[in-house]
Amino acid sequence: MSSSKPLFERVALIGIGLIGSSLARVIRREGLAGEIVISTRSSQTLDRARALGLGDRYTSDAADAVRDADLIILSIPVGAYAPVAATISPHLAKGAILTDAGSTKGSVISDVTPHLPRHVNFIPGHPIAGTEQSGPDAGFDSLFENRWCILTPVPGTDEVAVKKLARFWTACGSTVEMMDAAHHDRVLAIVSHLPHIIAYNIVGTADDLESVSKSEVIKYSASGFRDFTRLAASDPVMWRDVCLANRDAILEMLGRFSEDLAALQRSIRWSDGDALFDLFTRTRAIRRSIIEAGQEVDAPDFGRHPEIAKGESAKNEG
Amino acid sequence: MSSSKPLFERVALIGIGLIGSSLARVIRREGLAGEIVISTRSSQTLDRARALGLGDRYTSDAADAVRDADLIILSIPVGAYAPVAATISPHLAKGAILTDAGSTKGSVISDVTPHLPRHVNFIPGHPIAGTEQSGPDAGFDSLFENRWCILTPVPGTDEVAVKKLARFWTACGSTVEMMDAAHHDRVLAIVSHLPHIIAYNIVGTADDLESVSKSEVIKYSASGFRDFTRLAASDPVMWRDVCLANRDAILEMLGRFSEDLAALQRSIRWSDGDALFDLFTRTRAIRRSIIEAGQEVDAPDFGRHPEIAKGESAKNEG
Ligand SMILES: NC(=O)c1ccc[n+]([C@@H]2O[C@H](COP(=O)([O-])OP(=O)(O)OC[C@H]3O[C@@H](n4cnc5c(N)ncnc54)[C@H](OP(=O)(O)O)[C@@H]3O)[C@@H](O)[C@H]2O)c1
Ligand SMILES: NC(=O)c1ccc[n+]([C@@H]2O[C@H](COP(=O)([O-])OP(=O)(O)OC[C@H]3O[C@@H](n4cnc5c(N)ncnc54)[C@H](OP(=O)(O)O)[C@@H]3O)[C@@H](O)[C@H]2O)c1
Repeated sequence: MSSSKPLFERVALIGIGLIGSSLARVIRREGLAGEIVISTRSSQTLDRARALGLGDRYTSDAADAVRDADLIILSIPVGAYAPVAATISPHLAKGAILTDAGSTKGSVISDVTPHLPRHVNFIPGHPIAGTEQSGPDAGFDSLFENRWCILTPVPGTDEVAVKKLARFWTACGSTVEMMDAAHHDRVLAIVSHLPHIIAYNIVGTADDLESVSKSEVIKYSASGFRDFTRLAASDPVMWRDVCLANRDAILEMLGRFSEDLAALQRSIRWSDGDALFDLFTRTRAIRRSIIEAGQEVDAPDFGRHPEIAKGESAKNEG
Repeated sequence: MSSSKPLFERVALIGIGLIGSSLARVIRREGLAGEIVISTRSSQTLDRARALGLGDRYTSDAADAVRDADLIILSIPVGAYAPVAATISPHLAKGAILTDAGSTKGSVISDVTPHLPRHVNFIPGHPIAGTEQSGPDAGFDSLFENRWCILTPVPGTDEVAVKKLARFWTACGSTVEMMDAAHHDRVLAIVSHLPHIIAYNIVGTADDLESVSKSEVIKYSASGFRDFTRLAASDPVMWRDVCLANRDAILEMLGRFSEDLAALQRSIRWSDGDALFDLFTRTRAIRRSIIEAGQEVDAPDFGRHPEIAKGESAKNEG
């Protein structure tokens, strides 16, 4: 970062888990704020953030944290927004930008907006970046690099504030995209919420079987099952809240998924090899496109075996 | 490998894709055979195997390949076993071990056994190791390391032959487990076949949506969806054959999965946060166990970001 004036004078991070602590790290690295104020609910997490040196000031009082901040970012489970918004609203500075990292956007707008004074620029956001881990230790400063960040400002939001927030995310390494909250919630229902729900479900089904032991599931998991366990190891509070907050879009995607699965099940029952072959062929192209778009590693097995990656380059040479 | 006599005099590999070529590589490295004979259907794949130097002799005639071999390994899609068994059976040497790498075992026994002369030891096998890639270039010599290999000999099989084959897989780096074919097919239905079917299905559902564009699915796939695309990029012929060959066990697992998903869907519809939280908590433990069992990498995001792995160790130090 250059020695010019930072983009924001004081950033208040409310919530300092995976997302909040990754933000703290990249804000520091890029010099995006004159001061980083960190606030979280528990003294334990706050102490950990302090030990990691993530901010300049630490407080368990969110109202205190937001005072005189020109950027406030909520990085807490979406079910916790309404009470937190009620707590901080009276203390938000005039012209401040309030944004968030929550995985749903319709619910966030309806939970936060009623509490806000008119002089605050509320611009909901969602970085499409994360891992299955949680807490301040799990964050890292490159989390947002080469990822997308979606902003869903409501009509009438101050353009200058939106541009400034977009510059912030660009400086974090992301590409900013704008869409309305309802579309965001439909898109995320298919690319993120349904995958997590399906992963949780299949791991639950395997866990319940009587005819196959748990130790067998674990031993032979490399044949496919383990891929699902990563998403199914994600934070339960975060995902409970997402399911409750984006119910309608999730139910729609679940309906389509189940319908398609019933058709696939029928093809298996009636030994319709052509239908199976057609589906299994059509789905290959999407992975190629994801790799080409730079959203996935180009190595077998997610690059789990570094020795194959070597084989890959040897292959390309030969 | 020591300079002692190799375990087998002549190994015939029928099929030289991901599995066959990985076998060729590890057999060579460990000196497990005096001669490696490679056979595959197409001249194109045979030429590629030759160019990669995978064997000592190459033939597109499977009958010719098995002559005087004391170990024959079929590494071809399970739907192709019956005709191939019919072709090679008259040419199998007395006392030879015939085995395979196929992902289903009940079907393999019923497709192969009727063709076999009594003087051959048929011992079905299944290495629980693979990637989503296919063909002779995709193989690598460490594929079977730290993985399990399941053998499903039928009652009455020669013990000495079974022990010898087990020694072979141990030398390839695997741990050998014995079970009956029906149990194998139920275990694999949940740990491998259902995960692949679900992955193919969700990618198909996403591909069909009108309200979310394909480019949006690709752009935002890092939020969960991309994890499924790896399995859904697996070979369509292999997976069509697996679905047809292990129909009953797969239909049973699909039934349970759908039942559980209906209950989960109901919890979402009726905002039963406690039920969601309970399921999402219970599923976390399984991933921990898989990592502890050495069947998964211990890094966020499957180790996709090497820079987090570094962060991990820094965290452990601090
Ligand atoms: N994880 C991802 O992959 C990902 C990706 C994109 C967006 N998001 C979204 O980002 C947000 C944060 O996720 P995260 O992964 O960073 O979570 P996390 O690592 O679990 O951290 C959660 C933070 O929220 C606080 N918190 C939890 N419950 C709270 C409550 N009821 N009231 C006030 N604060 C509470 C925690 O405080 P204490 O520890 O002090 O209790 C902690 O500081 C969520 O809305 C999530 O949907 C997550
Ligand atoms: N991939 C995995 O992750 C994995 C893991 C464990 C077990 N397996 C099992 O291992 C076996 C081989 O899988 P793979 O991944 O190595 O497959 P692959 O890379 O696609 O190679 C398939 C091989 O089988 C040959 N083949 C295909 N169709 C055939 C037919 N109709 N008749 C005769 N030969 C045919 C191919 O010959 P040409 O190229 O000459 O046509 C090629 O040599 C399958 O039974 C599979 O279920 C796979």
